[in-house]
Amino acid sequence: MKRFLTRTQLSALIHQKKTFLCVGLDTDINKLPSHFPKTPASVVEFNESIIEETHDICVSYKLNLAFYEAMGTEGWDVLRKTIDLLPENSFVIADAKRGDIGNTAAMYAEAFFKDLDVDAVTLSPYMGKDSITPFLDYKGKWSILLGLTSNEGSKDFQMQKLQDGSYVYEQVLKTSCQWGTADNTMYVIGATQAASLSSIRKILPEHFFLVPGVGAQAGDMAEVVKNGATDEGGLLINASRSILYASNGKDFATKAREEALRLKKQMETGF
Amino acid sequence: MKRFLTRTQLSALIHQKKTFLCVGLDTDINKLPSHFPKTPASVVEFNESIIEETHDICVSYKLNLAFYEAMGTEGWDVLRKTIDLLPENSFVIADAKRGDIGNTAAMYAEAFFKDLDVDAVTLSPYMGKDSITPFLDYKGKWSILLGLTSNEGSKDFQMQKLQDGSYVYEQVLKTSCQWGTADNTMYVIGATQAASLSSIRKILPEHFFLVPGVGAQAGDMAEVVKNGATDEGGLLINASRSILYASNGKDFATKAREEALRLKKQMETGF
Repeated sequence: MKRFLTRTQLSALIHQKKTFLCVGLDTDINKLPSHFPKTPASVVEFNESIIEETHDICVSYKLNLAFYEAMGTEGWDVLRKTIDLLPENSFVIADAKRGDIGNTAAMYAEAFFKDLDVDAVTLSPYMGKDSITPFLDYKGKWSILLGLTSNEGSKDFQMQKLQDGSYVYEQVLKTSCQWGTADNTMYVIGATQAASLSSIRKILPEHFFLVPGVGAQAGDMAEVVKNGATDEGGLLINASRSILYASNGKDFATKAREEALRLKKQMETGF
Repeated sequence: MKRFLTRTQLSALIHQKKTFLCVGLDTDINKLPSHFPKTPASVVEFNESIIEETHDICVSYKLNLAFYEAMGTEGWDVLRKTIDLLPENSFVIADAKRGDIGNTAAMYAEAFFKDLDVDAVTLSPYMGKDSITPFLDYKGKWSILLGLTSNEGSKDFQMQKLQDGSYVYEQVLKTSCQWGTADNTMYVIGATQAASLSSIRKILPEHFFLVPGVGAQAGDMAEVVKNGATDEGGLLINASRSILYASNGKDFATKAREEALRLKKQMETGF
């Protein structure tokens, strides 16, 4: 395992670059700029251009597995080639939202931490402790659990109230934070839930939050930074579609950079 | 899409073969019988032998994605080759437990239903309705949602009580069954939860349940059949490790068949 980023190192990276920005490489082969042939090789080429134009202004990249799996057998190869292109001093997240019983979770952990060697993987907490702990056994690697997500469907179960008056997602945070520590566990908290962020920060004062939903999903950046940032940083704020598809033309990469810079600027209140 | 199995057809298959058996191809490359070289090609060869010895005595196969992803780039290829070996009149499940926001869910649906062309995929309900509906849009394909799982961790969140006195998993069943119908939605209900099966059957009288946990996890088969079976069938009962690793020698396939037959016999009270 080459990739290994501690909380202190991640915090240093965020302060040095003055940004929480995580670029989401959720690259849809059907949405590539029009001059690209719609091939898996084009996805690698496209990703390479995006990485070149953003690596100095972000601290993290998130690769959404669905977009690679949709390419079939070649998808995993594109995923690996993209990961190989990412700079060493960036925090690489496999956005996979896996979650299964212990012996299966151990296989997923092997796939993501040994084989793909990413820094972190997103996980679904529905199946409880033994679905998460096999990931926590990897030193220097991170588990990012779904807490309160950015989508409409978060109301269906996450925001149901338990008998003690707390929400299901609050129970998820309170229980699961005991399985690991703030040094190996983070949480997905949607930017569209910015108002809830300050109460969530009270429950988890130290943990990093991965915050999707500031781009295409239109969460409020100022609120997110105000309610979520800590002295250490405490946030990775992801934008995918708004950066990747800033332009459909040959200027896609420079337009992607402009959008990334715009988001980075919005985050400056946190420094 | 070649694979297309309606509820009526699945029910007919179950009654014709007199079994609910689903064979779990959770093939761990490190647990192959000792005479196999530990290569991806061996996994295909091993799976082929298991399929040959079990296809006439089971109605379904379940492929656990973790075990294929752990093989890296070649894993997806092994997965596809294995799916190609499965007989047409069997119900093929990708046990993937995916769950993500709508645009991502649509990509996963494409990966599983278009590209791999399986009959069904297992899904995690934590993110709610819009994480599930893109899968329900595929005619003749099935979504299998996690309800009450077989592992110890099911107590952490699934068995927490909501303000109306119901369990979280019951809310998941009651809410999500309205998103689709019994013709395109099934639920994972662990065999280790056999005692809860009769109350779950009251909530969902028509839906099929995928029941893991009768083999290595030691759930009670008689209870599962008694509490879960319906006139239509209503059950797919999965065993993975107890069949795959019945022997570590050259007789692995015949021993696998013996174990599958033993389980099939245990299920006969349902017919």
